[in-house]
Amino acid sequence: MNSDRDSSRQQVDVDLGDRSYPIYIGRGLIRDASFLTPHIKGKQVCIVTNETVAPLYLETLMTTLSDFSPLSIVLPDGEKYKTLETVSLIYDRLLEAQFSRSSTLIALGGGVIGDMVGFAAATYQRGVDFIQIPTTLLSQVDSSVGGKTGVNRPLGKNMVGAFYQPNCVLADTDTLDTLPDRELQAGLAEVIKYGLINNLPFFDWLEQNMELLLARDNQALTHAVKISCEDKAAIVAQDEKESGVRATLNLGHTFGHAIETAMGYGNWLHGEAVATGMVMAADLSCRLGYLDVADVDRVKKIIARSGLPATPPSEMTVDQFLSLMSRDKKAESGSIKFILLQKLGQAFVTGQVDNAILRNLLAGAPFSQ
Amino acid sequence: MNSDRDSSRQQVDVDLGDRSYPIYIGRGLIRDASFLTPHIKGKQVCIVTNETVAPLYLETLMTTLSDFSPLSIVLPDGEKYKTLETVSLIYDRLLEAQFSRSSTLIALGGGVIGDMVGFAAATYQRGVDFIQIPTTLLSQVDSSVGGKTGVNRPLGKNMVGAFYQPNCVLADTDTLDTLPDRELQAGLAEVIKYGLINNLPFFDWLEQNMELLLARDNQALTHAVKISCEDKAAIVAQDEKESGVRATLNLGHTFGHAIETAMGYGNWLHGEAVATGMVMAADLSCRLGYLDVADVDRVKKIIARSGLPATPPSEMTVDQFLSLMSRDKKAESGSIKFILLQKLGQAFVTGQVDNAILRNLLAGAPFSQ
Repeated sequence: MNSDRDSSRQQVDVDLGDRSYPIYIGRGLIRDASFLTPHIKGKQVCIVTNETVAPLYLETLMTTLSDFSPLSIVLPDGEKYKTLETVSLIYDRLLEAQFSRSSTLIALGGGVIGDMVGFAAATYQRGVDFIQIPTTLLSQVDSSVGGKTGVNRPLGKNMVGAFYQPNCVLADTDTLDTLPDRELQAGLAEVIKYGLINNLPFFDWLEQNMELLLARDNQALTHAVKISCEDKAAIVAQDEKESGVRATLNLGHTFGHAIETAMGYGNWLHGEAVATGMVMAADLSCRLGYLDVADVDRVKKIIARSGLPATPPSEMTVDQFLSLMSRDKKAESGSIKFILLQKLGQAFVTGQVDNAILRNLLAGAPFSQ
Repeated sequence: MNSDRDSSRQQVDVDLGDRSYPIYIGRGLIRDASFLTPHIKGKQVCIVTNETVAPLYLETLMTTLSDFSPLSIVLPDGEKYKTLETVSLIYDRLLEAQFSRSSTLIALGGGVIGDMVGFAAATYQRGVDFIQIPTTLLSQVDSSVGGKTGVNRPLGKNMVGAFYQPNCVLADTDTLDTLPDRELQAGLAEVIKYGLINNLPFFDWLEQNMELLLARDNQALTHAVKISCEDKAAIVAQDEKESGVRATLNLGHTFGHAIETAMGYGNWLHGEAVATGMVMAADLSCRLGYLDVADVDRVKKIIARSGLPATPPSEMTVDQFLSLMSRDKKAESGSIKFILLQKLGQAFVTGQVDNAILRNLLAGAPFSQ
């Protein structure tokens, strides 16, 4: 790692035919109009952000885009506002300002803002242009690739939405400087996931560079974001609508969603629940004969070194896990789909898991082997 | 016209690459499972209809699809229910019934039901399968082709939506038997539109067969629906997202929307407003030197013979028209787009209309030529 900031700007191209777009990664991108303006086609621009991010970056972005005199909308912060009611508020502000079909919406914030503004862009006048400026590590490595947009319903997370690709993504790594430690760590869970799914060399690199990442070394973070986006882009390009291989991106998520639901959203961060879920998936892969105990230990160790939880909440019961997992969106008519590891760096999807082995895992029983 | 009902079943294929789908047209299709079942992939089927259509056709359709034990949702009838709140009701019923991503939504009803259920299908779990069974002439010839789905906002009609194609469309012409006269006539406005836009032979045929259509001769109606769907499909295939030629489908709509808005939605039916709008577009085309007075007379006559209004409401002022037309969704930053007729059977789009000529038209001044 050297500290040559300018040369460390990176670009990842997400290849989706006529919906392809670039992700720019590095320092100072929000201040630099040359990245954004080529992707804005009309004259009407609206920046949507939240109360936490607005004081940090909204003025800077407004200045960068001053030629467009952007409209700005500042929403309350938090997953509980990821609703159709909040999206309706965006629609109505755009209508009041007579925004046409050739306007551009810019999401400035984390995953919640990206998901909601993306959905608003997908549906306002049947679709307007959309640019994402993710300001958390999690959203830079996860929601900036894949085009998943949406909102929650009382009966389930992300139950309403659309697949909708942005014109471009700006992952300005400067924004990671202001991120709370716990959110940085939650983002690292998804970064580690890419290593586990299909990139063992990256997993090795993460083991060697975890301290640099936690110390927010910009070059290390830029590299981690770039590899994560590349890996996700390669998978999404094969399977845009999640009918096959894209499901491997849900490693740790079936267990993780059960934990998030059981504990109440926001008590465990998504990344924390996924971290524990990945350890559980590795453990299950070991019980089923795919991984060695040593592999599982590597997974546990890197999760623990990232400051993330490696064991599920002790108050959760086996039956609670099973019931919540079979309600997951990825479950097909009641049968749970598992993402397991063939080996470190190679994930696969299966619906075939022996119930006794699964119950042993969930009960926290020691390895039988 | 002969009365061989069975041989009168028709099929139109809408060619949109991997989103292509068939439209089946003719008698008895709702009773015939062989049309629907090949297009249903999963096991979970939900029929959404309204309080007017449910007593007429819901039981029949439930019987046809009894193998799937469909869920049914009956909504209140009317444009004022075409809202996100009603769509939310659909989402939540599907979530309660644990409908997965591989479910199929069937819209049984007119344009409002089709638009709303299409939008629900486009966005429930980021998109599930969708089948349309339009039960009005207007929806059979208009919303069954083109993939436009959506809902209204207080500040504008169809301001929220998505382009989303169905798996198939069943235009069962039996349903036209129960349609009120006024709605049949409103549907004929859109049928006439296809003749005017790009099919002079069809316009000639309509002039010859208008009485048969008004008498609900099934073979004549089936032919009219088929040609309308073919014409619209050909235009949509060239321009799925309405960036060019598809705009000609809005012949009469810029004037028509102004009338609908000024008179309050529902007082003038959409087709009635479009009928008057087409006469006004023909009149304007004449004033600009494209059509003869005799051509305009042919347009006026066929509109009048269909029982449709050929003149705008006398209480509307020139300024009211201009203000409402420049607010239309199709207007780009304030400049009104007009769909005019080069000749009968050939429409084109222009933003270039002399203001004095336009004002003369709106003031109801006689032709200057």
